[in-house]
Amino acid sequence: MYNHQYLFDFTREVFIKMGCCSEHATMTAKVFLAAELRGLPSHGMIRIKDYYQLWEAKRINIAPNIHIVHETPSTAVLDGDGAIGMIAATQAMKIAIEKASKYGTGWVSTRGSNHFGIAGYYAMMALENDMIGMSMTNANPLVAPTFSVSPFLGTNPIAIAIPAGKQPPFVADFATTPIARGKLAVAEKKGEKTLFGFVQDKNGNPSDDPTNLKQGGSMLTLGGDYEHGSHKGYCLSAIVDIFSAVLSGANFGPFVPPSVAYLPVLDKKVGEGTGHFFGAMRIDAFQPAEIFKSKMDEWIETFRNAKSAPGKPNVQIPGDAEREKEIKIMKEGIKIIPAIAKDLKEIADKLGIEFEIK
Amino acid sequence: MYNHQYLFDFTREVFIKMGCCSEHATMTAKVFLAAELRGLPSHGMIRIKDYYQLWEAKRINIAPNIHIVHETPSTAVLDGDGAIGMIAATQAMKIAIEKASKYGTGWVSTRGSNHFGIAGYYAMMALENDMIGMSMTNANPLVAPTFSVSPFLGTNPIAIAIPAGKQPPFVADFATTPIARGKLAVAEKKGEKTLFGFVQDKNGNPSDDPTNLKQGGSMLTLGGDYEHGSHKGYCLSAIVDIFSAVLSGANFGPFVPPSVAYLPVLDKKVGEGTGHFFGAMRIDAFQPAEIFKSKMDEWIETFRNAKSAPGKPNVQIPGDAEREKEIKIMKEGIKIIPAIAKDLKEIADKLGIEFEIK
Repeated sequence: MYNHQYLFDFTREVFIKMGCCSEHATMTAKVFLAAELRGLPSHGMIRIKDYYQLWEAKRINIAPNIHIVHETPSTAVLDGDGAIGMIAATQAMKIAIEKASKYGTGWVSTRGSNHFGIAGYYAMMALENDMIGMSMTNANPLVAPTFSVSPFLGTNPIAIAIPAGKQPPFVADFATTPIARGKLAVAEKKGEKTLFGFVQDKNGNPSDDPTNLKQGGSMLTLGGDYEHGSHKGYCLSAIVDIFSAVLSGANFGPFVPPSVAYLPVLDKKVGEGTGHFFGAMRIDAFQPAEIFKSKMDEWIETFRNAKSAPGKPNVQIPGDAEREKEIKIMKEGIKIIPAIAKDLKEIADKLGIEFEIK
Repeated sequence: MYNHQYLFDFTREVFIKMGCCSEHATMTAKVFLAAELRGLPSHGMIRIKDYYQLWEAKRINIAPNIHIVHETPSTAVLDGDGAIGMIAATQAMKIAIEKASKYGTGWVSTRGSNHFGIAGYYAMMALENDMIGMSMTNANPLVAPTFSVSPFLGTNPIAIAIPAGKQPPFVADFATTPIARGKLAVAEKKGEKTLFGFVQDKNGNPSDDPTNLKQGGSMLTLGGDYEHGSHKGYCLSAIVDIFSAVLSGANFGPFVPPSVAYLPVLDKKVGEGTGHFFGAMRIDAFQPAEIFKSKMDEWIETFRNAKSAPGKPNVQIPGDAEREKEIKIMKEGIKIIPAIAKDLKEIADKLGIEFEIK
């Protein structure tokens, strides 16, 4: 088990050695560690290697000129100039929050970025300002629109964080697919089948075999099949793509650049890098903050007290599960599986820093 | 078959006879007819009777003092004062569009309203202003959160309309459940079973029997069951409820008032009426409008050209189906089934106006 501060310092050091300024390295390390603490290791330390290899391949800009391309009182387009996604995204969300503090809401579409880690991190930045936060991103194409065999969409997550009073905040953070890509990868590695409704084969037939993803198949959108509303999942995923990339001028749909260096740069570009979209809404732009928070407490208590079906868990409020994990992981430490620890040690050796295998 | 202008004039006259001013009657009739033309009769003429009966029961305010309660440059809370939903919603969306024209975006949460018809109508109001439009509403509780048997949520739809250039606009308008309530009602009337994944019985067991909805069962959120991501549908539905009702001070979740007079007024109130949420974003608040539109054309063409699975229809762009129906219905006329025509004739007789049974 690793102490989170140890991993934070290590991650920060990795990015400093790669050439990041101190501020950018801190921003980046915060998001990596937030993923580990919230129990989402698929977006945590495992991805340091991806960024290290993108850096080696000169496919990220370690000293980016992140700049606003266009703005109005409540909107902006931010160009990340090829930055690490966590840096462009943190800056973009800060701008959304500043605009909201002046004009009620702020909305920032971002281009020229890369994989930004967990969407929830940025949405949650709004909470300490008594704002509702939103965050979404497009991602490498793996997911087929309804009726199609073309994997033209990413898992395109949406995160929304809403402050409450006595209750902890409402934090929804979900991919617009029924299941995370990481869970399919685990099943694939174990040679296991999954339920139907997550993937299809290269001809669009329903499948329970995650290896289809490497044989021309694709993931399905939330809903699974048309009869069960996959076209609604397709709508959601498309909206994330358009807000993130068409509004900003990033690459959309099938043209989103790979977030790993072992996949080649795509031949066709329709914009700059990966796209994200962020929003902040001041709660007191609608109601006095104390009234809103007490109503939100009432909402949360109402839903927490919904009756469970026999044998089922209690009804959860979005964010409950991750918060419980965070409390546990802060106490018990962060587990890094041997293969990842070995990767991190190799990176540390190459960069001339310490990493202890535990 | 009825000519749409005939039904529009009739609908307008019904609401004028009920006491609406001319402007409000026109607003209301526009939304009813839009539902018919877009091939969504479950939200069209069939619902005139619901409003007529709510009016008879003095459960709507026919001469409301619709007013802004609070505002900032980019936000407002609108109090509908018990208005017909179409009136409060049209006013709210107009305010969102005005704010967007000045400050880039506009966001209006609305309380004290009623059933507003099709969500897509309001989102589409933004299109002619070169804006992206959003619209959502909470609704009568029928849908259970994941793991629960308590129907605490409505079908809570989300609509988003995005302008394009040569291509028709992208118009997504969908309930946050796998299937519409109306389709379950049809199956129920025919004595037919449905697929699994739409409803559960009163104990939370999966069911293919839509009659469960009248026996303590509930609808499921998009995703169907937890394993297939119903918690994501629950997140979406919850967000619609919070943006529509907690931000505005309307009734939320299980406390949303019935939209029909044959159901009693609820004992407990946690706010005013039904809640909606609207947004408008000027596309040139992000990019020059012509550039955005041409990129949007490229997005649409890319997805239209996604490869279909063998035997499946072409990939659709959200809004395609409704637009095709509108062209057909404008030409062929609107079909009103005999039972509805009879209801309309009865209302016409009571109000002293004409309605021809065809």
